[in-house]
Amino acid sequence: MPGLIECVPNFSEGRRPEVVEEIVGAIGQIDGVTVLDHSRDETHNRSVVTFAGNAENVVRAATAGVGRALELIDMEQHVGAHPRIGAVDVIPFVPLGTSRIEECVDLARRFGEQIATRFELPVYLYGEAALRPNRKRLAHVRRGQYEMLREEIATNPDRAPDYGPSKLHARGGAVAVGARKPLIAFNINLRTDDLALAIKIANTIRESSGGMPAVQAMGVLLENPGMPPMAQVSTNLVDWQRTGIATVVREVRRLAREAGTEVDHCELIGLAPTGALLEVAADTLGLTDFSADQALELRLARDR
Amino acid sequence: MPGLIECVPNFSEGRRPEVVEEIVGAIGQIDGVTVLDHSRDETHNRSVVTFAGNAENVVRAATAGVGRALELIDMEQHVGAHPRIGAVDVIPFVPLGTSRIEECVDLARRFGEQIATRFELPVYLYGEAALRPNRKRLAHVRRGQYEMLREEIATNPDRAPDYGPSKLHARGGAVAVGARKPLIAFNINLRTDDLALAIKIANTIRESSGGMPAVQAMGVLLENPGMPPMAQVSTNLVDWQRTGIATVVREVRRLAREAGTEVDHCELIGLAPTGALLEVAADTLGLTDFSADQALELRLARDR
Repeated sequence: MPGLIECVPNFSEGRRPEVVEEIVGAIGQIDGVTVLDHSRDETHNRSVVTFAGNAENVVRAATAGVGRALELIDMEQHVGAHPRIGAVDVIPFVPLGTSRIEECVDLARRFGEQIATRFELPVYLYGEAALRPNRKRLAHVRRGQYEMLREEIATNPDRAPDYGPSKLHARGGAVAVGARKPLIAFNINLRTDDLALAIKIANTIRESSGGMPAVQAMGVLLENPGMPPMAQVSTNLVDWQRTGIATVVREVRRLAREAGTEVDHCELIGLAPTGALLEVAADTLGLTDFSADQALELRLARDR
Repeated sequence: MPGLIECVPNFSEGRRPEVVEEIVGAIGQIDGVTVLDHSRDETHNRSVVTFAGNAENVVRAATAGVGRALELIDMEQHVGAHPRIGAVDVIPFVPLGTSRIEECVDLARRFGEQIATRFELPVYLYGEAALRPNRKRLAHVRRGQYEMLREEIATNPDRAPDYGPSKLHARGGAVAVGARKPLIAFNINLRTDDLALAIKIANTIRESSGGMPAVQAMGVLLENPGMPPMAQVSTNLVDWQRTGIATVVREVRRLAREAGTEVDHCELIGLAPTGALLEVAADTLGLTDFSADQALELRLARDR
């Protein structure tokens, strides 16, 4: 699977299922692209589509999705809980398989330039693809949202787009295009209802409070009907090659034991890179000289 | 990767590298087939080629390999330590990805019939593809080897081939064609030089002496220059969906601890089905509701 790329566009429409289906359909009809997932949120009035393929096909599919969204979504009518600047709010490219983040950075920039021209759409590069350092953070790009950007884009040089006109698209607003590494959403459930402990462990392990690199974490209390409440350390691993699943679980296990409890079980939310899971197996077994190439189907997929 | 099949033919030539290269080349030139490995053994005067692809391409490649071997190998001249009945001695088909063993059984039978006709070659079906119960075991099919089979094939009804003439191929002899599940070669190294303990643990876990189903095991002593000798439990897992890696390692760890020692590390020899490795990760993490479909690249490969 050389050059395999994932793309996860977010669309500012979560209340009209037929519109979301139209957009997903426009993406999925491109040959060589697999739609892995799509979800729709009424409160946020927002949808997320996950698809993958090689660079060329992913760009074709993303372009088709943008085109359809600009026809079907009018930002002047949009309200919702989630911050947004456009009908297609954000388009990250993510390296899978043997692809590298650098390829996704290049791809995001080329794609951004293309759609800016084609659709007369202001494009902001964010994440690893950012051209201005303060645009690395999506929150900075999106500050004040659609409504404030509409006022500032032409007058404030700090808000000039990287590509496209310094004027919002009539219905579609603007878009943030970027590159990031695959994100693993991973939860560790403790054998206790002690929410304070889950919060304390989350604070200890997360990067933002001095913990492990590339780890985001928060403590929550799971309350499912008919089940005893359970404290959970909910994590996002944003660069598993820096800090992997096994390392995080080992540390949470240690901290839980120090506090007199145990890890009960874990949950993987959605998809994860196969390499991140194989690393757990290799770590557990103390495999010497293990390579992901020893996983048969993966090796074959890579050679095709 | 729908319908992905592995094929592991064994050829009775291990001393002329140029002949082995010719055969590997004939297999590898078929589009859609990936040669994963090939090895050559001078003592056994025998080579093993591992390749994979979809059923149609694997059959084309296996047929090309048989054709080339029948041209280049003369069983009347062959001597070697390993039991054999023909120039292409044995051809197993193995299900990978989402393929099932039943597909490989069908494939082995169709392929066996085809090459019997095409090359006038006696074909014996073995393993899961066997039509006669006592031919399940390859050793039974191969008893007395090439030399005895040459005498008995026409006269002993018990040795009549499943397909093809009751007369050996002039230079190529006969071939055993079969189906089996993927085999995992997996070693568990103990933190001791106590060979007797490794043998005792192997005897406890292996199916043949009343241990775990689909597990073969033996105890050996590793002696590498410059390293202290290390006792090893060397295993073959012949059906990881019945007894997987995690189960075997857990049991060996328990038995080692009972004897006052520990598992030092493990070794995976060659390739293993990705599912067997993901199962170890899911087991370690106590993942609830885990599916191999959550491994991104694997899911994508499956959908293509």
